[in-house]
Amino acid sequence: MSGTSRDGIDVALVEIGGTFPSNLIRLIHAETAPFPRWLRAELIGDGAPAGPARLTALDFAVGECFGRAAMRAMARAGLAPADVDVIGSHGQTVFHAPGGVRLGPRAVAGTLQIGRGSMIARLTGVETVTDFRSADIAVGGEGAPLVPIYDYVTLRSPAKSRIALNIGGIANLTALPRGGSPTDMVCFDTGPGNCLLDIAAALITGGRARYDRNGALARRGEVDRSLLARILGHPYFRRRPPKSTGWEEFGETLVHRIWRERARWRPLEARGLLATLTEATAESIAMAVADFVRPHMSPDQVIATGGGARNTFLMERLGLRLADRFPAITVEKGEAFGIDSDAKEACAFAYLAYLHLARIAANVVSQAAGLRPAVLGCLYPAPARLSC
Amino acid sequence: MSGTSRDGIDVALVEIGGTFPSNLIRLIHAETAPFPRWLRAELIGDGAPAGPARLTALDFAVGECFGRAAMRAMARAGLAPADVDVIGSHGQTVFHAPGGVRLGPRAVAGTLQIGRGSMIARLTGVETVTDFRSADIAVGGEGAPLVPIYDYVTLRSPAKSRIALNIGGIANLTALPRGGSPTDMVCFDTGPGNCLLDIAAALITGGRARYDRNGALARRGEVDRSLLARILGHPYFRRRPPKSTGWEEFGETLVHRIWRERARWRPLEARGLLATLTEATAESIAMAVADFVRPHMSPDQVIATGGGARNTFLMERLGLRLADRFPAITVEKGEAFGIDSDAKEACAFAYLAYLHLARIAANVVSQAAGLRPAVLGCLYPAPARLSC
Repeated sequence: MSGTSRDGIDVALVEIGGTFPSNLIRLIHAETAPFPRWLRAELIGDGAPAGPARLTALDFAVGECFGRAAMRAMARAGLAPADVDVIGSHGQTVFHAPGGVRLGPRAVAGTLQIGRGSMIARLTGVETVTDFRSADIAVGGEGAPLVPIYDYVTLRSPAKSRIALNIGGIANLTALPRGGSPTDMVCFDTGPGNCLLDIAAALITGGRARYDRNGALARRGEVDRSLLARILGHPYFRRRPPKSTGWEEFGETLVHRIWRERARWRPLEARGLLATLTEATAESIAMAVADFVRPHMSPDQVIATGGGARNTFLMERLGLRLADRFPAITVEKGEAFGIDSDAKEACAFAYLAYLHLARIAANVVSQAAGLRPAVLGCLYPAPARLSC
Repeated sequence: MSGTSRDGIDVALVEIGGTFPSNLIRLIHAETAPFPRWLRAELIGDGAPAGPARLTALDFAVGECFGRAAMRAMARAGLAPADVDVIGSHGQTVFHAPGGVRLGPRAVAGTLQIGRGSMIARLTGVETVTDFRSADIAVGGEGAPLVPIYDYVTLRSPAKSRIALNIGGIANLTALPRGGSPTDMVCFDTGPGNCLLDIAAALITGGRARYDRNGALARRGEVDRSLLARILGHPYFRRRPPKSTGWEEFGETLVHRIWRERARWRPLEARGLLATLTEATAESIAMAVADFVRPHMSPDQVIATGGGARNTFLMERLGLRLADRFPAITVEKGEAFGIDSDAKEACAFAYLAYLHLARIAANVVSQAAGLRPAVLGCLYPAPARLSC
């Protein structure tokens, strides 16, 4: 898969044993393949109008690139395409609007991930599942998150109520009540993950730093309480799940506005901004657990993955803010539970391809919201070896 | 499927028996479902910029519309979704460029048909195959034509060399040498089918007529020999197969230019224009047979389908122009061979869905052009009835 930052293609080669939901999922090899420079430029070139011609060309070019990334990963892992049963490719999201966009008299929900599966199947010779999100949209869901079923299979416990927390640009969580079933899961985006911190780090270093390594800058700053309160007053944090958000809501605009208006929160210096944003991120996650998870379960453990799990200062602050509400809670990294922080999402989509083949519904189903189970994805067969 | 005119959705319900390539394909029911007015307006609104948001919304809205059309057709045929094994949906082409479009330093080939399969599968409860063209593009083909395999199965003969000729907006043919195999087929677009005639009919009646019914107007006109020669001098007619063309090449621009310049071909009146365009269409098909089919086989029969097969004057002229070159050739309508002229393409895509399930390569493979066999389409499963 490739995330919203469009940095590269995360490839994971996994072995899946057992039967659902007691699968054993073992990571064999993971790597991140960069996009060719010209293709990344085309992908992030938000100025260019993307009509049908350009979008289709991107769709096929990204598919080719994903296919080559899969070939390279197999070669590095010492495997041949014939050793691989199926490829699951999330692709690159270029549009996602579960709430719908206006079309004539209607609001039409939709989602679009590019990276055409026929290109991947043809280059690798391995059958390929893509378009995982649209079936959930078709049954009235948000098309996201899709990772909860993977969290359920890899992290559920009969003895502990756990929260799988992934801190990417946006942070999301899956609450897994002890001994619960998939329909007992509570899953939503808590709000900002690394996005505010990364943007602020780039802003205050004039672009030299792409992120605040280990939270070192934030650790030496002072939190501005009034700015913190203002950020935490964002209406998203009060919305009830299911809910999802994006960089549009918690991205550049927000951070740049705060920085332009910094005279208001004097003396807000660079490190103070980072300290405040780090505290806001940690506190927003703790608030989400208290407000929207606690009604369903009393959490024992938080298992953090994603880039944010490597920000030691953010993890410390999150631990403290959670401990305020849940004295016995522990916060640990995914690695302690056999989860590779960086490869988690790629592993999840490999597993979703397996669930597709097994015809097992993998979307998050909530009786309350009237959502229906759906087998996710569409399958492109491997190219025929013989003509008819 | 829906063709380039975007008039409506051609639905065919077929029963497929036997084993490939000796399948028996029986048409149970066929109908054309109109698009809702607002959706057709959105589809033909070529002025509107179709960015990712609009294209995705159209993709889902067209998918919903195709799903409803399938439901209606099943109900009218007295069948339930559980009676139907699979839906094959060509969708609505919005972009097709096997020759590639510029993207960064590359020319990237691609094709895009909208009508998301997950919407069709969810509305009908029937698993659905879509995106038939991209796998052929992925192996280096043109993504078209895809109907030849259907022609092969339904019309090949051990005793006669046949040409399956479909006269839609563009005319295409599949040459089936007697006793030949699929790799012996020769398939290409001959050039204009009804497109020049329909545009001219609308032009000279001020939009009152959408086509020249039975060629009645053309029959009373006089052919302008110099204009005829000029049209037949179009370089497309000399290009060697495989080749395909579209309304861009033989559409409004050409007809309107001729009509604006009609003073040159005096006295070219309305009926004379139609007579000349009808003659050009008939002659271009006969030329194509002589130039590009004769080297492979001596044709015994032409089997015509598509709207053009109902234009009795066009069929007469085609018969004469062919008889000039092949004295013993016969020209008949599809119905004489059990082929429904109007439902043929829809039947073909139902059959292509069957070939997908059977994992049989269905693209046109030419050893000469180095094209490789490909299983066409991607499969969206039916929605799960039970959660995991």
